[in-house]
Amino acid sequence: MDQAELAGLVAGIGLPNTATAEAARARQARLTKPTGALGRLEELSVWVAAAQGACPPRNFERARVVVFAGDHGIARAGVSAYPPEVTGQMVANFLAGGAAVNVLARLAGATVRVVDMAVDADTPEQVRGYKICRSSGRIDQQDALTREQAGAALLAGTRIADEEVDAGADLLVPGDMGIGNTTPCAVLVAALTGVEPARVTGRGTGVDDAGWMRKVAAVRDALRRARPYLPGRSDGGAALDPVGLLAAVGGADLAAMTGFLLQAAARRTPVLLDGLVSGTAALLAYRIAPDAVHWWLAAHRSTEPAHSVLLDRLGLVPIVDLEMRLGEGSGALLALPVLRAAVATLAEMATFDQAGVSDRAAD
Amino acid sequence: MDQAELAGLVAGIGLPNTATAEAARARQARLTKPTGALGRLEELSVWVAAAQGACPPRNFERARVVVFAGDHGIARAGVSAYPPEVTGQMVANFLAGGAAVNVLARLAGATVRVVDMAVDADTPEQVRGYKICRSSGRIDQQDALTREQAGAALLAGTRIADEEVDAGADLLVPGDMGIGNTTPCAVLVAALTGVEPARVTGRGTGVDDAGWMRKVAAVRDALRRARPYLPGRSDGGAALDPVGLLAAVGGADLAAMTGFLLQAAARRTPVLLDGLVSGTAALLAYRIAPDAVHWWLAAHRSTEPAHSVLLDRLGLVPIVDLEMRLGEGSGALLALPVLRAAVATLAEMATFDQAGVSDRAAD
Repeated sequence: MDQAELAGLVAGIGLPNTATAEAARARQARLTKPTGALGRLEELSVWVAAAQGACPPRNFERARVVVFAGDHGIARAGVSAYPPEVTGQMVANFLAGGAAVNVLARLAGATVRVVDMAVDADTPEQVRGYKICRSSGRIDQQDALTREQAGAALLAGTRIADEEVDAGADLLVPGDMGIGNTTPCAVLVAALTGVEPARVTGRGTGVDDAGWMRKVAAVRDALRRARPYLPGRSDGGAALDPVGLLAAVGGADLAAMTGFLLQAAARRTPVLLDGLVSGTAALLAYRIAPDAVHWWLAAHRSTEPAHSVLLDRLGLVPIVDLEMRLGEGSGALLALPVLRAAVATLAEMATFDQAGVSDRAAD
Repeated sequence: MDQAELAGLVAGIGLPNTATAEAARARQARLTKPTGALGRLEELSVWVAAAQGACPPRNFERARVVVFAGDHGIARAGVSAYPPEVTGQMVANFLAGGAAVNVLARLAGATVRVVDMAVDADTPEQVRGYKICRSSGRIDQQDALTREQAGAALLAGTRIADEEVDAGADLLVPGDMGIGNTTPCAVLVAALTGVEPARVTGRGTGVDDAGWMRKVAAVRDALRRARPYLPGRSDGGAALDPVGLLAAVGGADLAAMTGFLLQAAARRTPVLLDGLVSGTAALLAYRIAPDAVHWWLAAHRSTEPAHSVLLDRLGLVPIVDLEMRLGEGSGALLALPVLRAAVATLAEMATFDQAGVSDRAAD
């Protein structure tokens, strides 16, 4: 996927339906409750009605988590509390159903798919159909991917979104697994927002003070390597070069997730974002196609500092804040019942007329 | 229920099981995720293990909402945006399954019981078995109840808790319905915390500015009437008189809820508190029996200002904040899936050993 193909994808992204949003607002006002008393549920129900182009909206029957797994060469720089082989081991754990995302998906009535984009291990055939490489490069010193690999990963993400929507998914959740993956996220968030490295570098899986300092240094070095692909760069180029940026300091998992989010928007399919990694892909996708953000909700607020920075830039207010920082799509699955509650109350509650309940006196 | 019977109830309240809490903490550390990465889910899972005296804990199969309905004479003072007849109409709506609490309970796998404690209408036989009166008195000018009525309502609450626990409820949710009920709550929170009336008086169902000013005046007048029942009162009495306080400025619904919360604790049954009304009953129950608070969780933060004041006094941090202010138990039902997720992750996730995943290097 090159710049021209990306432009074609962007051109296909439309806006949610304002007429069904208006109908949802009107219906909210007739339900047997004080106006506004359901708080954020009301605004979420309107959002779903607009995304589905239906009022009342239908509740989500086929929520689908796609976990994008990938290793990152930067993990060898001592930036993580866990060894890199955990990525491949966790892919096996996902397939066996023992990880947090599996437990939470079962409970929430969602299903989980794992795709190996760049795991540094031999993974089962069922997950490696879109694999780009074994580990992305060490971004403080070298490119994560070639430009061709980054384009291929972006395209893979769009194809995965298509597969899921074609198979009937009515809500998509991008999840992540990859030891070291919060480091390229910090770099991308710093690059796209101008916020300084120390403010976007978190503890990830729980690295200690010395590891955190190594991580900040790695982010700073990689950020320097990102500069040629940012607007206002020294060669006078004015536009962001997203493929170049993903190749230089991203990774195949982040590139695929970016393509996935753009294609979900093009397919008018609601997305529940998870934490820092999907949020970083969303920030980049938003810079590529600002209208795409209307198709995404922020499920939760991660404790990773870069997550709050990017949510602010996206203008998204998370549904829950449970101080989580696990990834995998786990945080999104905690917000899914809230989203379903928003739809159910709008669709199923009695109106004042139906129930014979007195409304407030007109003001 | 008099002061002596209340003391007997208090003496029967024990503490959750610290050994199973410790076992839950140890199990959390072996699950395939970074330590602490599940954030508040981890602490909630430990809480449930302690309350159930079991590790891993069992997930909630029989969550039960009990909606305590009652009218309040103060509603005739123009403190609410809705007319008093809505209370009885909403009881019918609950029984028909059309209210928010019904929709949210169906979605969350909980069931709803309605008890008419003081509705100013003829309600169906199935809900009026514990009815104390038709509307509590207008508390800015007269007592809400006689002392005998307040004692009877407290006792009714304990019996209702017993009935539910005996019928197999493994989680209790106190809900409320009553036009005007946030006014006695504001009075009780002001009385029990010393915070001034204007800071604990909210908009309730959405009263306008003039109504809010009438409400503050009513709270101020009622607060004066509450003084004889508070510690440090002019007759030299040092102890809180909860029965007297409920009779003077409470109501039959609030008294029943207070008894319900105390008995739930005595029966070692976890409670998910809802918003301002159940929180006010909890604050009073806590002042009667401080250990009871260990059996309660704060589900959500209501937009009513008195709710944040009382949560702070109870030392409870709400699970979600969705800017809701509906009551009925609706907010609690949004937190129930989070609580179930906490239990499920602790009970069902694979450990590092089981999954063959490498743990972090020992520090």
